[in-house]
Amino acid sequence: MSKSTKPTLFTCLSPALLKLYDLNKTVVVIIDVLRATSTIATALQNGAKAIIPVDSVAECIRIGKQIDAITAGERDGQVAEGLEYGNSPFEYPETFIKGKTLVLTTTNGTKLLHMALDKGAPEIITGSFPNLSAVCTHLIKRNKNVVLACAAWKDKINIEDSLFAGAVINNIQEHFSIQCDSSQIAQTLYHAANNDLFEFMKQHNASHYHRLTNFGLEKDIRYCLTPDVANVLPLYKEGKLICSGIY
Amino acid sequence: MSKSTKPTLFTCLSPALLKLYDLNKTVVVIIDVLRATSTIATALQNGAKAIIPVDSVAECIRIGKQIDAITAGERDGQVAEGLEYGNSPFEYPETFIKGKTLVLTTTNGTKLLHMALDKGAPEIITGSFPNLSAVCTHLIKRNKNVVLACAAWKDKINIEDSLFAGAVINNIQEHFSIQCDSSQIAQTLYHAANNDLFEFMKQHNASHYHRLTNFGLEKDIRYCLTPDVANVLPLYKEGKLICSGIY
Repeated sequence: MSKSTKPTLFTCLSPALLKLYDLNKTVVVIIDVLRATSTIATALQNGAKAIIPVDSVAECIRIGKQIDAITAGERDGQVAEGLEYGNSPFEYPETFIKGKTLVLTTTNGTKLLHMALDKGAPEIITGSFPNLSAVCTHLIKRNKNVVLACAAWKDKINIEDSLFAGAVINNIQEHFSIQCDSSQIAQTLYHAANNDLFEFMKQHNASHYHRLTNFGLEKDIRYCLTPDVANVLPLYKEGKLICSGIY
Repeated sequence: MSKSTKPTLFTCLSPALLKLYDLNKTVVVIIDVLRATSTIATALQNGAKAIIPVDSVAECIRIGKQIDAITAGERDGQVAEGLEYGNSPFEYPETFIKGKTLVLTTTNGTKLLHMALDKGAPEIITGSFPNLSAVCTHLIKRNKNVVLACAAWKDKINIEDSLFAGAVINNIQEHFSIQCDSSQIAQTLYHAANNDLFEFMKQHNASHYHRLTNFGLEKDIRYCLTPDVANVLPLYKEGKLICSGIY
């Protein structure tokens, strides 16, 4: 395949920059490594029927009651008042989540997903290290334009989402035309870190690392940086994230 | 000095993210490596009296006539219609620019400078590799909070401005409290590139590299990536950038 016929790949490092990218005919990968998209992959891998991402705690409670689903979400790293569960992937083992629907509200990932929807993205999937290969395999197979969209932290660029974008690019770059400095930056970051992602996060004072370890969640971080331990493809369809493939 | 008493340093990788940063009591460094801030340092080093940064070509022409100054600026890499000179540092040798005032309009740097003014930044300087040490020395001496503000390209993050932020951080980090993932990313990028910045730019398809080399400006790029060849401190004061120190 000649270079010019390859689909394009762009990386958007903050929701505040999403307006710069054309999402028409594009697969958008929502990335919220700590911990929303890691937990989504894990719950679907463990047999959750669907995950409904919502913006607010109130909406989470409302929908949870309406369809008798599990409600989950955190604000500032703690289970939000009125909800049952948190954002940790370890809260959703098969014994608990199989066959159930989870209504999940997160600070950054859900907001970004809805922004991508509003901008008319025809296909939205979610990505995280636990389902890295599933995402990469899918993107190569689809052979369409891609935007890797990082959820960041209140619009501030973060290391972990950028690292995941870099990991994806590292795996699939030969299949795409990448003329995007943010992608090059993400990939350079990944190369500098991929020897030991956890150690890199720790050494570089990543803001999430500090926030989460303050709540004693080192185990979560280690899991969320581990590739392919929940290798499913979460696809957004009619308001829900469903498992559209197991890899 | 204990860690908690150090001033803070943040990096803002795109003007679209400037709203996230508090500029109160802060020194803002405007970074537009290719080529506005490199040219500003060079013209001041070569004896320009002042540089007046303006938003539009029309404003540039108007002020140029009003004060009988040199007008300069580019749009899409070419001298803009109605203006006399371009953005290349090589257009401003001492024999030409000494004692003169330059009215300069640029696509990204000027816009960002005016955004920082509107947000109430009390002190604005400009930075580029040609005046890297001057910027670092000044920031250490000032001992105030710092925001390194990258002009980027039409709000898209670029490699060269991020690299310069990384270079500054690399030089002054021990004097500041840096709890900012964008700063860590910029510094990691700089470490990956600092063996040969030009080669890194070339290999990583930096968007500016391609745009500018299409106009045959490799010489400009090499110059704009060279530290300390125009080691002055451009300070914004009453609408003008003036030389506030030679290093």
